[in-house]
Amino acid sequence: MRTAAQNAELALLIEVAGTPKPGNVDRERDLPGLRFEHFLAGAVGAQGGLRAAERGERVGAAFERAVEGMADQRGGNTQFGALLLSMPLVRTAGEGELTPEAAAGTVAATTVEDAVDFYRAFDHVDVRAGDPPEEMEPLDVRRGSDAAEAIRTRGLTLADLMERSADRDGIAREWTDGFEQTFEAADRIAALDGPLPARAAETFLWLLAHEPDTHVAKKHGESTARSVMVRAQEAREGGPDHVRAFADSLVESGINPGTTADVTAGALFVALERDGLEV
Amino acid sequence: MRTAAQNAELALLIEVAGTPKPGNVDRERDLPGLRFEHFLAGAVGAQGGLRAAERGERVGAAFERAVEGMADQRGGNTQFGALLLSMPLVRTAGEGELTPEAAAGTVAATTVEDAVDFYRAFDHVDVRAGDPPEEMEPLDVRRGSDAAEAIRTRGLTLADLMERSADRDGIAREWTDGFEQTFEAADRIAALDGPLPARAAETFLWLLAHEPDTHVAKKHGESTARSVMVRAQEAREGGPDHVRAFADSLVESGINPGTTADVTAGALFVALERDGLEV
Repeated sequence: MRTAAQNAELALLIEVAGTPKPGNVDRERDLPGLRFEHFLAGAVGAQGGLRAAERGERVGAAFERAVEGMADQRGGNTQFGALLLSMPLVRTAGEGELTPEAAAGTVAATTVEDAVDFYRAFDHVDVRAGDPPEEMEPLDVRRGSDAAEAIRTRGLTLADLMERSADRDGIAREWTDGFEQTFEAADRIAALDGPLPARAAETFLWLLAHEPDTHVAKKHGESTARSVMVRAQEAREGGPDHVRAFADSLVESGINPGTTADVTAGALFVALERDGLEV
Repeated sequence: MRTAAQNAELALLIEVAGTPKPGNVDRERDLPGLRFEHFLAGAVGAQGGLRAAERGERVGAAFERAVEGMADQRGGNTQFGALLLSMPLVRTAGEGELTPEAAAGTVAATTVEDAVDFYRAFDHVDVRAGDPPEEMEPLDVRRGSDAAEAIRTRGLTLADLMERSADRDGIAREWTDGFEQTFEAADRIAALDGPLPARAAETFLWLLAHEPDTHVAKKHGESTARSVMVRAQEAREGGPDHVRAFADSLVESGINPGTTADVTAGALFVALERDGLEV
């Protein structure tokens, strides 16, 4: 019987094994400087933080610890978003039933110290983040732990921070919306047939065809993110050859829908933990 | 900084990711009923037992616990041999320097209770084992925990059991010979260049070309195991196309050199833990 922390780690591993996941590293695809084994090491390294969340440590502290462990490989940021999404879910599962309501309660209970921990996590890894609005400059995540004073002065909790980013960051939106997409994708994974990595890949493409990926939007602009979404719809309708061609084209353009992969990992965790899906 | 238990789990994951590993599941190959994700779940499931070995629990008890966790997936026996090989190494690393001498000391310190635990591990999983000699029938591993009384009556330690199997089982030979092949393969992995999974695959083939695989010998006979060894030599000399053809041919014949994969996983652990190889 796997623990919640083990299911979360396994979800990270199954997510990266699912193929094809257009634009991202998967069982059949490495990217320049970012290879499959970096994700394996990232998942193993995150263990300590995942276990901390399961036994009830503060979400922010557990997250920072998970990111520090994740970063102990040479690929850089492998699973930052997936861990940020999963952490309140793992903590919720460690306390009782894993429902959207309970997860929203975990989010609502986060404190200013969780927000400080969240900023500290950026010290461990290089994460893509856009320029913040001018009045938010002291809270630029790129300042890492140097932003601690500004957070404390403003009295912002981690839930507050997420709410402020919800319109431009898919993970923050999940935190704010009761993990709606994550649970919906988990229902889908549970309802599909076949090996879990294949269900994960199918669900990744389904998510990508339904919402613009915010990681793509930050890096390449809103219109590119929308175009990727439309092309994902067309690829799904066209079948496996179209999906493969779409995947190749995204890689050629350096477009990786990372947020969609993060939501897929979170959904796999819910499916393993809540629905007890067998591997 | 990964712990010894984390390095051991990561070694299992990198081993299965290395490709091509002729005859075995790898990043590019599933076998009927035994898929890549079964190995992912097996490695994650083994965590508790690996951590127990690291903090100094008896080798047998830690092994049984690791196998129980490993077996929580539908592929069956994924990493029984790799865990049996790694367990004294992880325990040794948890206590101090990981050397062949120290590992031999860990083996020598095993007790009758470790032997009983070892038999218990067979309750969790179906492992290929041949018919024992008649006088050993009460000690047939297929009896699982039912053999406990016979082990206690005879006062056999786990080291004793391994010594008795050393001539026909490659893992038992490693236990008995101070893990000679494992450390040699680790030196090789450390000396090679390139991504770790590729080094692991290269080392797997090198091992296969040097010693008949005892898992193949048990299942298909000594002469098949020798023929696989010779064909591995030829495939290495012939280059990548020959290796791929060799891999396809082994899969068609249902031949999987499992012991060689187990030694590769053990060697990866040594390379990660002792040499601090980066991923």
